[in-house]
Amino acid sequence: MTHSEPASPRPQTAQTRTQTATLAEIAREAGVSAPTVSKVLNGRADVAPATRTRVEELLRAHGYRRRRAEATRSPLIDLVFHELESAWAMEVIRGVENVARDAGLSVVLSESAGRLTPGRTWADQVAARRPHGVVLVLSGLDESQRALLTSRSIPFVVMDPAGDPGADVPSIGATNWQGGLAATRHLVELGHRRIGAISGPPQMMCSRARIDGYRAALETAGLPVESGLVMTGDFHHETGYRLGRELLDRPDRPTAVFAGNDLQALGLYEAARELGLRIPEDVSVVGFDDLPVARWVGPPLTTVRQPLTEMAEAAARLVLELARSTGDAAPTATRVELATSLVVRTSTAPPPLAGS
Amino acid sequence: MTHSEPASPRPQTAQTRTQTATLAEIAREAGVSAPTVSKVLNGRADVAPATRTRVEELLRAHGYRRRRAEATRSPLIDLVFHELESAWAMEVIRGVENVARDAGLSVVLSESAGRLTPGRTWADQVAARRPHGVVLVLSGLDESQRALLTSRSIPFVVMDPAGDPGADVPSIGATNWQGGLAATRHLVELGHRRIGAISGPPQMMCSRARIDGYRAALETAGLPVESGLVMTGDFHHETGYRLGRELLDRPDRPTAVFAGNDLQALGLYEAARELGLRIPEDVSVVGFDDLPVARWVGPPLTTVRQPLTEMAEAAARLVLELARSTGDAAPTATRVELATSLVVRTSTAPPPLAGS
Repeated sequence: MTHSEPASPRPQTAQTRTQTATLAEIAREAGVSAPTVSKVLNGRADVAPATRTRVEELLRAHGYRRRRAEATRSPLIDLVFHELESAWAMEVIRGVENVARDAGLSVVLSESAGRLTPGRTWADQVAARRPHGVVLVLSGLDESQRALLTSRSIPFVVMDPAGDPGADVPSIGATNWQGGLAATRHLVELGHRRIGAISGPPQMMCSRARIDGYRAALETAGLPVESGLVMTGDFHHETGYRLGRELLDRPDRPTAVFAGNDLQALGLYEAARELGLRIPEDVSVVGFDDLPVARWVGPPLTTVRQPLTEMAEAAARLVLELARSTGDAAPTATRVELATSLVVRTSTAPPPLAGS
Repeated sequence: MTHSEPASPRPQTAQTRTQTATLAEIAREAGVSAPTVSKVLNGRADVAPATRTRVEELLRAHGYRRRRAEATRSPLIDLVFHELESAWAMEVIRGVENVARDAGLSVVLSESAGRLTPGRTWADQVAARRPHGVVLVLSGLDESQRALLTSRSIPFVVMDPAGDPGADVPSIGATNWQGGLAATRHLVELGHRRIGAISGPPQMMCSRARIDGYRAALETAGLPVESGLVMTGDFHHETGYRLGRELLDRPDRPTAVFAGNDLQALGLYEAARELGLRIPEDVSVVGFDDLPVARWVGPPLTTVRQPLTEMAEAAARLVLELARSTGDAAPTATRVELATSLVVRTSTAPPPLAGS
C-alpha cells in the first residue's frame, strides 16, 4: 500500500495516473464498504464515530485526494474569521463577496469565536457542504482539519496569518514590517525622538512585523528603543485607550505614538482628549489599516494603508484558482504580500518644544 | 383542482389533511414526471426553462408548500443585504451569526448590489441550497421570489424594511419615528429654533419615519417646518458632507442638524471643520444608529441608538421559529419594532447667541 515500487504498473488503469490509494482500497483496509467511505467524505452523520476516525486516519495516511471534486461542489466559498469584531472585517467581507459574486458563488461566513483555529464541527460542516474553497482570516487550521479538507480536495488560503501558517499553506498578507518602518520614519523625520508604540497581540505575526519595523526605523536613525515605551495591546479600541492613558499620563511622555492599528489610535485619541492633550500639537499619532473611519475622525488620522479589500479579493481569487487546479499535482504553495503605504493626514506634526 | 368542494373527501388519504395539491398532481397537470417537479423544487439545472416556468406557475397557483422540509434542510441561514457598505452591516452580521452559531448553523451572505430586491438567480440558488430561512436587510422580495421560497417552505423575515413589506411579511424594525422625535425634541429643549435635517433615501420607510418624527417634534413645539432646511440624503458619509456644506454655508444657517444617521453626521462634522465651525459651540449635531464610531469621534456624537445587533438576532430567531412551524398552517404575520433611545454625548449644546 505504500507504493514502494511505483515503477511497477498496477492492474487497474485508473491507478496508473496517481500515487494515492483509491476509495475502494481505503474501504478494504478499513474493513468497511466503499459507500461508507463516501459517507465520511461527504460529512454524513450516519457513520459510527469509531469508523469515521479509522477512515479519516487512512485517508490521511494515504494522502487521499478526492477526484472529480469539481462536479460535486456547491456554489459556495467559505470565509472564516478569527473574530467579527471590527470594521476591519467588513473590508474583508466586501473583497471576498466581490470575487464570489463575479464567479456566481455565495459566501458562507463563520467565526472561530476568538480561538485561533475554528472548532472541530466546523471542518465537518465544511466537508458536508463542499464549497469551492475556504478563506481563513487571521486564523489557522490544525493538522487534522487540514487533512480533512485536503482529502476532500477543498483548497484553503490564509489571509494575514496570525502565526506561521507553514511553508505549504498558500497565504496573502501585507508588508507589515515596511508599514511599521514607514510610520515610524515619518515621525522621526518630523523631529520626534521619544516615540511610543502599542503592538497588537504578540502571537500574530502581522503585529510582530509592525513592531519590528518600528524598531528598525529607530535603530537606523540612531535612536534608542526604550522598552518602557513599547506596550503590548490587542488591536482593540479599549486597549488603545487604556495603554494610551498609561503612556500619556507619565511626566516623560512620548511626543508621538505608533498605535499599531487604527482602532488603538482612536482609543489613544480618547485618552489624549481626557488628559487635555491636543493632537497633533502635544502628541502625534499614527495608525495602521486606513479604515474608512480614519478619514472621519478629528483630526483625520495619519495611518498606514493596508489594502484589506484587495487582499481579500486576492485570497478569494487564489482559492478559486486552486479549486480549478486540484488534481493529481498538488499546487505549489504561494505567499503573496501586497504593499502597504503611508497616508499622511493631520494627526502628525513636529514635536512640541522641550519643556513647553 | 381548485378545491371548490373541500367538504367532499378525496380518495387519497394524504390529501385529506391539506387543501393544496400534491407533487404528483402538479406533475400530472404540468404533463411531466414527479421527479421533474422535484428537480425544479431542488433548483437543479437539468430542467428545460419552459418546463421550469410551467411548474413554478402551477406550484404558485396551487399554493404548494413542500412538506417534510425539515428533513432536507441544509445547516444554513441566508442573510441578504441591500448593500454591504457601512459599519452598520457589521452589527447586523454579528447578530445573525450569534443566533446561527447557537443553532449549529452557518450564515450565507449575499448582497443585492444596490437593487432593492436580489436577482432572479439568487432565488434559484437559495432554493437549491435549502437553508433554514432567509433574513433580508433593507431589501424586499418580488412576488415570484416570495412564491418560490414559499413553495419550498423556506421562511423569510425582513429586517428594517426599505418599503412596505406587505401585511403578511414578518419583519423586525426599530421605532424610527420615536427616534426622530426624541432627537429633535432634545435639540428643541436645548433652545434651538432653526433645526436642519438630512434624510435618508425617501423610498426607505425607516428614513421617512425619522423625518416625520423630526417634523412632529417641531410642530408640537409650535416651530415652523422650513422645507429649505430639510435635505434629501442617502445615508452615506459623502452625502452628509456635501449637504452639510450646503446647509452650513448659508448666512441663515441652522444652529443644529438632525443628520438622519451616524455616517451623515460624520460627513457633517467634516463640513463643519472645513468651514471653521465648532461642534457643538457653533452647530449641534445629532446622528442615528449609535455605531461604535459614534463614541470615538471628536466630539463624541449625540445619537439615537438603534439596537441593530438585537434586531438582527430577533430576525434570525423569528426565521428559525417559522422554519420549525412550517406545515399546513401558515404562521401569522409578525411585525416587531424594538425601541430606540437617545444617547446624549457632547455634540449637542444650547445654540450660540443670535448675531454672535
